[in-house]
Formats: sequence, structure tokens, C-alpha cells
Amino acid sequence: LRLSERQLVERIGRQASQSAACSARGLVLKQGIGDDCAVIGGSSGNDLLITTDLFLEGVHFRREWQSADSVGHKVLARGLSDIAAMGGTPRFAFLSVALPPDTASRWVDEFFEGLLRLAKASGVTLAGGDTAASHSTFVADIMVIGEAKRGTAVLRSGAKPGDEIWISGSLGGAAAALGILQRKSGRRTAPRDRLQPLLYPLPRLAIGDELRRRRLASAMMDLSDGLSIDLARLCQASGVGARISAAAIPRPAYVPLDHALHGGEDFELLFTIPAACSRKVPKHLGGVPLTRIGAITRGRSLRLLQEGRESTLPVRGFEHF
Amino acid sequence: LRLSERQLVERIGRQASQSAACSARGLVLKQGIGDDCAVIGGSSGNDLLITTDLFLEGVHFRREWQSADSVGHKVLARGLSDIAAMGGTPRFAFLSVALPPDTASRWVDEFFEGLLRLAKASGVTLAGGDTAASHSTFVADIMVIGEAKRGTAVLRSGAKPGDEIWISGSLGGAAAALGILQRKSGRRTAPRDRLQPLLYPLPRLAIGDELRRRRLASAMMDLSDGLSIDLARLCQASGVGARISAAAIPRPAYVPLDHALHGGEDFELLFTIPAACSRKVPKHLGGVPLTRIGAITRGRSLRLLQEGRESTLPVRGFEHF
Repeated sequence: LRLSERQLVERIGRQASQSAACSARGLVLKQGIGDDCAVIGGSSGNDLLITTDLFLEGVHFRREWQSADSVGHKVLARGLSDIAAMGGTPRFAFLSVALPPDTASRWVDEFFEGLLRLAKASGVTLAGGDTAASHSTFVADIMVIGEAKRGTAVLRSGAKPGDEIWISGSLGGAAAALGILQRKSGRRTAPRDRLQPLLYPLPRLAIGDELRRRRLASAMMDLSDGLSIDLARLCQASGVGARISAAAIPRPAYVPLDHALHGGEDFELLFTIPAACSRKVPKHLGGVPLTRIGAITRGRSLRLLQEGRESTLPVRGFEHF
Repeated sequence: LRLSERQLVERIGRQASQSAACSARGLVLKQGIGDDCAVIGGSSGNDLLITTDLFLEGVHFRREWQSADSVGHKVLARGLSDIAAMGGTPRFAFLSVALPPDTASRWVDEFFEGLLRLAKASGVTLAGGDTAASHSTFVADIMVIGEAKRGTAVLRSGAKPGDEIWISGSLGGAAAALGILQRKSGRRTAPRDRLQPLLYPLPRLAIGDELRRRRLASAMMDLSDGLSIDLARLCQASGVGARISAAAIPRPAYVPLDHALHGGEDFELLFTIPAACSRKVPKHLGGVPLTRIGAITRGRSLRLLQEGRESTLPVRGFEHF
């Protein structure tokens, strides 16, 4: 392909904004392309949060590596994570799915079991969608609609120099699990808990909601493509730089630093906290640790502190193209 | 595949409703799976209308048969037609697109030109979406959000015995165009206007809106899969039957009756009108004829009047599986 994903998103954004005209009637687009969700305001007290996420066999997952149940779970989890990243409450999901001709009825059942179990646990109603036959591989596109009190959704663009940089949970577990699945022997012998971060990620809805409601976070996004590239995106949206400490990044003992810095699919939250609010951030929320890993800086550069030395943070996260 | 599209949709609907619980907060699902759009009500004066539509290379179109511009147009037109079918006003679109590795940058440009031209003409803002690399064919999923004054969206389920059955425009043109494109010689020599119904269908937004605002239509849907199968769906949703007249169905002179009865992709509106309102329905709207083709009956059967004889209407429309 001759366009990177970033180029394509920029092009869509540019062309779309040329044609866009926020109407005077009813709904108004407050945040369009370029954040985890679009934010649409209306006459009611809540803004709508809307996100769509593709999940493609051979690109985002392999059927021989994971059960239909975990595919269903993950399709929805990816969308819910975008709602969490705005601090919103997910309400409705719409699923478009194209199935290859050899798909067994049982696979479809298990796919929906995984998806609907997470929907129920998250208070989400599957409200519609579309189905088609695929001539090649499995395709799913999930759309999630959430809500947040008007004007309170946490954008990527609010980080200020001096704000602290925090993350939820630990990083690199999904990349490590991917490494296990890529080895045939690993698929047979891996302990289940080592695969969980990749196969059954838990969207951080309660954490995002708490940070929004208490107005602690100045900016927030979810870590879908890797800390380095996602931090770069948050900094670009906010017009700032960042300095993070390698030693501060929580990671399981078996995870190498590179996976924690650049591995995708952890679906933890990355957020910034004004220094004055730092003490108000709980150390844990619902059993998940919240950890300060660095600070927002005035320059545009990304810096990594490691063993007493400071260097440029390489941006190497996952690009889908 | 071991499930038909209908079976799959029914299964989704059944499993989803088991997990559904309309929350007391904010948004409420008024119409879920089983109509052209989902209808979501909130505290504002308008209901939200939401639809998603897959458009897959090799299933819904072939790249060698149509320009990127018409692919872009049609991806959005399919979604807008679902909004028209509720009588709604489309406001925002979200596009998920997966591109094969050999896609030229120019093809992408033309795709967006076609999509954004129709968006602009329809007052729709492209507000977000997702992109990915496809390892096989082109995949697009469009989600459109529209609005209609609270409680006025026209469902499929409101038809009553004695209501008249009407359609907008003429039928079978898209099926005839597909026949032309399937013959290699036809692709070179076909006049442009013969291909327009398939390649650049125009969603009937103004007609749907007018019928809703004047509260003329008791039920409505768009004709995406063919008159016979879509009429069967409307009758099933309303718990009624129908009798239509072959001679009354408007079709271009070059279109055989079978195409008008069973051909998909015309994206005209099918609607029912209480007999008392019949005289209020205009004969044309924005240059598009509106035509009465039959009546709703009390039984559950579908009947076709042809050359003075009445027989069972065969249901043969397009199933995507």
C-alpha cells in the first residue's frame, strides 16, 4: 500500500473537514477525526461518544491462535477501550460482520457468547449491525456509542507542560503473549494467564470514568498501538513534548522493556494529571494500579530516562499498515 | 456457510435481546435489530437513527466493473438510504475501510471524492472511522447517524390491512445494469444512464422526510434486496399480507418484470399509506414519481395480480449469502 495508516487518517480528516459544515439543527460535532472517539453534542445534558474499530482476520488476529470466544470479546473490548479513553459510559454497540463460507455455526455461537458476555458486564446493548458473506477472511467492525456529561469528555489535546504522565495497569503483556502465540510450541504450553492480556483485554471503563468525573485528567487516550507511538500522538494533539522514565513503567517480570515501550494492544489508559492534582489520584482503582511514569514538557521532543541517561524515545509502535 | 443471513440476523437479535437491558440513564433503545435503523431516544426533542452497512469487494461490487468514485458514492448511499427509510435527516457518517496492499493512492482519492461529494450534497459530515490494511479485498463499513423528531421515525411494523402500498421511482434498473456489467461487451458499450441506477443510486431522503413530517406513511423501508423479499419483510414486521399488481409497478421499458419484482439495489422507498390519506400523497416529489402498486391485506400471504389472474408472489430477492 502506498499510504501509511497515519497518512490515510490525515487525508480523511482533511478531505472531510473541507466538506464538513456543522449544521445549526440538533446535533453538533464537537470533536471529529483525531481522537479516540468523535464527540457529538445535542440539546440534552450528555454528549455522545462514538467510535468504530475494524478487526480483521490475518491482520488483527489469527483464527488458529485464539478461540471464537476471545475474538468476540476482543472485537467489543477494542471499541469499549475507546469509550474508556474519553471517560465515557458505553451504551450501545453495532456490529458489522462478514463470515467466510466455511465458518461453522458453533464458531459463530462462541463468537457471540464472548462478545455478549463482555457487553452484559459493561452495560452495553447490541442494538444493530449488518452481516454479509465474506469471500475470503473474517471481518468485524464494531461501533460503540457512549455518553459523558456535556463538555466533560477527556480529549487527547488537553495536556500542558508540567502535567504528570500516568498509565493504568502494566504494559507489554499483550506483546509478550503475541510472541508466545507466534511460536507453535508456545501455543500448546503457554499458561493461560500469560495469554490473557492479548486474548481478553479488559477495557478500563471504571478508571476512565473516575478520572473524568473527578476532573483529574487533562488529557487521556488508550494504549492500542504502543506507548511510544500513542504518547507521540497525545503530545502532537496537545502541542507538547514528554519525558518518561524507563524504570517507572510497570511491566510483568517476564516482559522486556522494549515490549513495554513499543508493544501494542495492551488497552491500558495513558493520561496526564496537572501537578496540583497529583495527590488526588488513587494508587489503585478496582484492583488496577495507576502509576506515574513521567512528565509533559514544553518542547516537542519525546525523551526517555534510562539508567541515569536521557535519550530520544524512539517511536516504534504498531502501525496497522 | 451454514447460516443464511436471515438466520444470522435472527440469532443476533435473540442473543442480543437476552443480554439487553435498557438503562434508566440517558439514552433508551426504542427500536433495535429488525428495522432499517436502530432508534435511540434521549432527553432531547429528536430521536437518533443509526445504521451500519458493509460494502465488500467481490460480494457487493467488483473493482473492474466500476470506478473508485462510484464505490465511494455507493458506500455512503446505502447508509443514507436506511436513514431515508425512517424519514430521517442524516447528520454524521463514520467510515471503516480496509485497503488491499496494491491499492493506488489515486484510487483512494477518487473513492473519497465520490463519498464526500454525496456527503456534501446530503448535509452529512464524515466524523470518524477506522482504517486498516486488508490482506485480501477492499472492505468498507459505513455507519450513519441521523435524526428525526421524537416518536416520528417511520418503522416497518406500522402497516394495517387496507393500507395502500406505494413505491418511489421505478424498479429493476439496478438489476438490469448488473446484467450489462456481467457481459464483458456490455461494459464497453453500455450507455451511462443505463448503469446509473446501480453505480450512483440516489437515496430518497427528501421523499422519506416529507412522508414522515406529513405523517402520511404508516410503514416504510428501502428496497435494497428486491421488492418481493423486502415486501415480505415489511409484511412480517407488521403482521399482515399484501396484494400487488404487476402492471402497476413502474419500470423502464427495457427492464423485464422479473427484475422489477426481484432485483436488488434499487434503493427506492417502499411505503404504506392509510386509504384515507391516499389523495394527500403527491404524484411526484423532487421529480421522482410516487406510485401505488397494491394494498395491504389481513392474511399473511403475498399475492401478485398479473393479466387478470392472482397467484402467490414468489419471494426471490437478493440474499447476501
